Amino acid sequence: MRHPLLLATTALFLSAPAIAEEGMWLPGQTPALGDTLKQAGLEISPADLGDLTTAPLNAIVSLGGCSASFVSPEGLVATNHHCVYGSIQYNSKPGQDYLTDGFLAKTNADEVQAAPGSRIYVIEDLRDVTAAMTKGVTSKLDGLDRYNRLEANRKSLIAACEKQANRRCDVRPYFGGQTYFLQQQLEIKDVRLVYAPAGGIGNFGGETDNWQWPRHTGDFGFYRAYVAPDGSSAPYSASNVPYKPKSWLKIADKPLEDGDFVMVAGFPGVTQRHWTAAEVRHNFEQVYAIDQQLRADYSTAIEKAVGGNKDAEIKYASILKGSDNYKKKLLGEIAGADAIDLLGRKDKADADFRAWVAADPARTAQYGQALADLDALVSESNQARVDSLRLATLNRAQLLTAAQTLYRWAMEREKPDAQREPGFQDRDRLSIRERLTQVERRFDAGVDKVLFQQALGEYAKVSADKRNAPLEAKIASTGVDRLYADTQLGDTAQRLAWMDKPASEFDASTDPFIQLAVAAYPGLKTAEDKAKERAGRMQAARSQVMAGQLAFAKAEGRTLYPDANGSLRFTYGKVTGKQRDGLIWTPFTTAEGLVAKQTGRGEFDAPDAAISKLKARDFGTYADAKLGTLPVNYLSTVDITNGNSGSATLNARGEFVGLAFDGTLDGVVSDWSYDAAINRTIHVDSRFMLWTMEKIDGAQRLLTEMGVGN
Amino acid sequence: MRHPLLLATTALFLSAPAIAEEGMWLPGQTPALGDTLKQAGLEISPADLGDLTTAPLNAIVSLGGCSASFVSPEGLVATNHHCVYGSIQYNSKPGQDYLTDGFLAKTNADEVQAAPGSRIYVIEDLRDVTAAMTKGVTSKLDGLDRYNRLEANRKSLIAACEKQANRRCDVRPYFGGQTYFLQQQLEIKDVRLVYAPAGGIGNFGGETDNWQWPRHTGDFGFYRAYVAPDGSSAPYSASNVPYKPKSWLKIADKPLEDGDFVMVAGFPGVTQRHWTAAEVRHNFEQVYAIDQQLRADYSTAIEKAVGGNKDAEIKYASILKGSDNYKKKLLGEIAGADAIDLLGRKDKADADFRAWVAADPARTAQYGQALADLDALVSESNQARVDSLRLATLNRAQLLTAAQTLYRWAMEREKPDAQREPGFQDRDRLSIRERLTQVERRFDAGVDKVLFQQALGEYAKVSADKRNAPLEAKIASTGVDRLYADTQLGDTAQRLAWMDKPASEFDASTDPFIQLAVAAYPGLKTAEDKAKERAGRMQAARSQVMAGQLAFAKAEGRTLYPDANGSLRFTYGKVTGKQRDGLIWTPFTTAEGLVAKQTGRGEFDAPDAAISKLKARDFGTYADAKLGTLPVNYLSTVDITNGNSGSATLNARGEFVGLAFDGTLDGVVSDWSYDAAINRTIHVDSRFMLWTMEKIDGAQRLLTEMGVGN
Repeated sequence: MRHPLLLATTALFLSAPAIAEEGMWLPGQTPALGDTLKQAGLEISPADLGDLTTAPLNAIVSLGGCSASFVSPEGLVATNHHCVYGSIQYNSKPGQDYLTDGFLAKTNADEVQAAPGSRIYVIEDLRDVTAAMTKGVTSKLDGLDRYNRLEANRKSLIAACEKQANRRCDVRPYFGGQTYFLQQQLEIKDVRLVYAPAGGIGNFGGETDNWQWPRHTGDFGFYRAYVAPDGSSAPYSASNVPYKPKSWLKIADKPLEDGDFVMVAGFPGVTQRHWTAAEVRHNFEQVYAIDQQLRADYSTAIEKAVGGNKDAEIKYASILKGSDNYKKKLLGEIAGADAIDLLGRKDKADADFRAWVAADPARTAQYGQALADLDALVSESNQARVDSLRLATLNRAQLLTAAQTLYRWAMEREKPDAQREPGFQDRDRLSIRERLTQVERRFDAGVDKVLFQQALGEYAKVSADKRNAPLEAKIASTGVDRLYADTQLGDTAQRLAWMDKPASEFDASTDPFIQLAVAAYPGLKTAEDKAKERAGRMQAARSQVMAGQLAFAKAEGRTLYPDANGSLRFTYGKVTGKQRDGLIWTPFTTAEGLVAKQTGRGEFDAPDAAISKLKARDFGTYADAKLGTLPVNYLSTVDITNGNSGSATLNARGEFVGLAFDGTLDGVVSDWSYDAAINRTIHVDSRFMLWTMEKIDGAQRLLTEMGVGN
Repeated sequence: MRHPLLLATTALFLSAPAIAEEGMWLPGQTPALGDTLKQAGLEISPADLGDLTTAPLNAIVSLGGCSASFVSPEGLVATNHHCVYGSIQYNSKPGQDYLTDGFLAKTNADEVQAAPGSRIYVIEDLRDVTAAMTKGVTSKLDGLDRYNRLEANRKSLIAACEKQANRRCDVRPYFGGQTYFLQQQLEIKDVRLVYAPAGGIGNFGGETDNWQWPRHTGDFGFYRAYVAPDGSSAPYSASNVPYKPKSWLKIADKPLEDGDFVMVAGFPGVTQRHWTAAEVRHNFEQVYAIDQQLRADYSTAIEKAVGGNKDAEIKYASILKGSDNYKKKLLGEIAGADAIDLLGRKDKADADFRAWVAADPARTAQYGQALADLDALVSESNQARVDSLRLATLNRAQLLTAAQTLYRWAMEREKPDAQREPGFQDRDRLSIRERLTQVERRFDAGVDKVLFQQALGEYAKVSADKRNAPLEAKIASTGVDRLYADTQLGDTAQRLAWMDKPASEFDASTDPFIQLAVAAYPGLKTAEDKAKERAGRMQAARSQVMAGQLAFAKAEGRTLYPDANGSLRFTYGKVTGKQRDGLIWTPFTTAEGLVAKQTGRGEFDAPDAAISKLKARDFGTYADAKLGTLPVNYLSTVDITNGNSGSATLNARGEFVGLAFDGTLDGVVSDWSYDAAINRTIHVDSRFMLWTMEKIDGAQRLLTEMGVGN
């Protein structure tokens, strides 16, 4: 579970019956779950769980792609090791290998800047803005007008919101656009790395253990949020001071046990639980087959192209790792879909809903047309998805992507800010600049060229009406070799310089990649308008069908939760292992298991000090009386996905008992359908975190700050 | 565990303390284990287990690479599906896909010939021939003379033995040549395929589940032994009749349970438990690293070369599968060696033995020089192993191998039979012919050429003194392209025709591969003599050191068993799962687990009839009362390796309760050191076999013959 938000998509539909322990609930839905939560073991007030102005919810933060939480009054933030990995890497250099050795700031002054672009988003408000979003959105509008109207409403809501000081705002669709929420966050820009254990703890087991149980990974690390002395958000400055959060999580001092209630609040990225049966079928039978092939070709091409070039190997290592991890997840999803008969489940749910609609003329009048529209749109979209998949391979060529981003940025800047495409407004300048800068750390011209050529092969398979004739002509007339020989975009300073140039300079440029971007632009715009037009119609059909699904669920006494969309969600469950024929997973792993896995090499190389103390059973106050040893990781039924990485795990009293950091490969199909018999989340136990901090790394300063042992 | 006898080597030495449930015992050792066996639960007389003239031991047979057993008075033989796989494949053709659909002969007359070369070896006698083997073998002989003397003694023992009608005899070294046994077998040449379940049962789970637990594979199939009407062994003939074995196994009618005593007799191929610490270290640190690389290159080259060529793909599928399986096993061995600290174990055992020798002047006098000699020889041999590994890649080129075999055959035939190299005597004619014929089913000239070129790359890395100058010169002067363009050896008839030509015709031949074989011959002979010379010295040193190890073990009250060498062995243990931190393997898998894995596609595609009957709980009389369902596979601690595949598993009463068919990847390091906490054998439960036969395939005829339900 290393890659937050792997699948970019929008929220869609289909009935997923809400059963105990399933659900990525909106904060506003939690009070209604009160009785269930109490029965499940919750000891604090269910109403508090829905309140963004109080603990524990206002101690939960987003890192953009990962989740995290405040664990001290001084802005200390706990999250996963793999969520602060980039910042550890950023601060490492020859002779100062924090990735291997770990990092601990002895004082606040020793805390180092996180990787460029690191942010901590503190949620300030979340409110239903459906009325404002759908203002003027009538059934008379055609698809494109409808899309544009929704976008205009969205942008104006965001602009109004961001007039407040220190706010970052967004509006996301829920239930396929049946509802919209405006989320307001304080964006903290001065993020510092405080502490990360050695790689042999934080990433113990590496790729071998990734997605696996039993697990023994100390996947945790700490940031601190800094703000200007007046409390406002500000970029890094030596004079900045630690941010004082409104709340922070108390570290549990009672042991967590098998069967205990646990809950997680965080920012799950994307799920597809409400997709229609036809969409799911097309995805598994068509899209994933092609996606697997494209991924395999991608990895093979990179491996071949970097072969023997150490510098290129390093630059592409994380891209390759990400691609391989994604392939692994795809395989898991496909096997998991088979195992739970996902298509059968979807067909049944679809049929049940349609039967319910058909059984009543009023319902048929209300939802029948939308259902028919949606069905037609789904089959229209399915082919578009396959083409998009192939077209997207072009963006593996980082210089083409950079040129297109730059030209789009120039074109959009010709418009007033409010009329620009999302992602190209003034508020996006910094993130575009950071993205364009990052290229230098993962780009090699020779490799990029190979990937570009491979992408052209895929491009040739795309339906003729989806191709871009001027782009093709320009590539053909220039030739791939000259593209790379003559471009200046490989140089970061040159690349960034284009950020301030007007579109006319692009049009006149002789840089071949800039010329490609200019040539491609009209075609891309046309394709984009077509996609928007379809998205407009899709929103109309899907939001109405989803309204039907909500009514159907209500009639059956079920409560639906929306698909994950990167917004704050709450999920609960219990600590528990699982049983399969011939196999039992027990809920906790322990010190003994870590020691047994230790080889002292490669992925199983915990520090000697850790191994010898574990062997000596020097567990301090952190051993579990029932287990008779130090717990390391545990399993629960909480319902999470990518984006939840780093989420604090809370016990029945709302206290911190660890961090969610992974799922298991046989459970990744949960993005499509959750099954409490199959799906398990893996957490690092807070006791293992605290033990490492006290016994191995001497992080007493942080323990004291967190109120541990006080 | 698909590849019998993967590592060709000789039996060597080092102390492996014999603890409960460890041990591949010689039949003659079992009476001495009597008390232990009784304590472990054996209900029949331990003495019977060492008696080759009575049940159960004389019902155990070898298939040459797999083990098997008689299960009826009519010569019906039960073994693994993967052991009869070649025969199922051999009898399949378009429109008659026995691999997928299974095969069941309705009557004896419908039983079909097994694949060419299939044999059933019935053990008739096993006796210590150390005195005869070492006759004239004195310490005055140099290495080569010693080797040749041992070989002469071996051949004369075998020749004398094979003068008896219907006998196939061999002499193998035990404890590094400290002991020799002559094994006499009846060689049954008319082997027929009787029954194999559908591939969706027999290979359920495929590569995905290979080496894994939980497992749900019905890995069983049946042959029948046929002989001439007079009872003598004879090639296939319509007039042949079923062989009447002296004994056959009774199918158990009491349920097998968790904790029950089980035992296995069969023909384990190769283990390295008595290797010295230095040999093991060199193997894991040097040899396996190179071997992994060579295997990876081999697979990659084949994949690339067969790409797009459907015919070649099919021809190389099993080679590729074998290579990938071997790579997987290597990885398992390497990870397993780390997990159990194999090198540490070996160092300690080595040090303990040396300390025992050093502690007493008499022992030092007796074993000290041999130990020093062995140490020197081991370091001499280690480099030779690395070179051999690279040189062996040349034999991936099947035409070169064929040419060399043919020329050697011609050269050896110039000598009297008794003086020829083992493997090139008259008794070997048929097997050479079969090997040369088989080439046609797994050879493609284009692929062969690529592999030959790759091998030349490895050849170039071999130490100069190990290279063969005339061979190199011939390859260089001919050129690889012309080698393949001009040879006739790709044609089976032409290839086989060379079997009857004298060496002089080879010398005069213009066939470039024949010319290569002729050019290479003197160098190969020289290298072979060098290897023999070293082997002679090795036998001298190792047999003496091993005598010391045996004495050391005796002094400590331990009993040593020799490394596996393909001869009949007995092992016992109990049905039991295992526990690791966070994980429990329960000992039985069941119908429910099979149904849960079923996807109806690919590797998880049991026949519909099986799935629907399992779902309907139509288990007949085969359900287990305690489990409440039909058992499918189970785990035990019996100590087996490659070659044991197909071994009957017997309960405490000596009755048939299933077949051993695999181990688990975390346990494959058992070839180097057994650990009852880690090593598990996977068996197919006889109740699942019988259920499949009765409920799915209607094999009532065979059930009746086996006395089931009578």
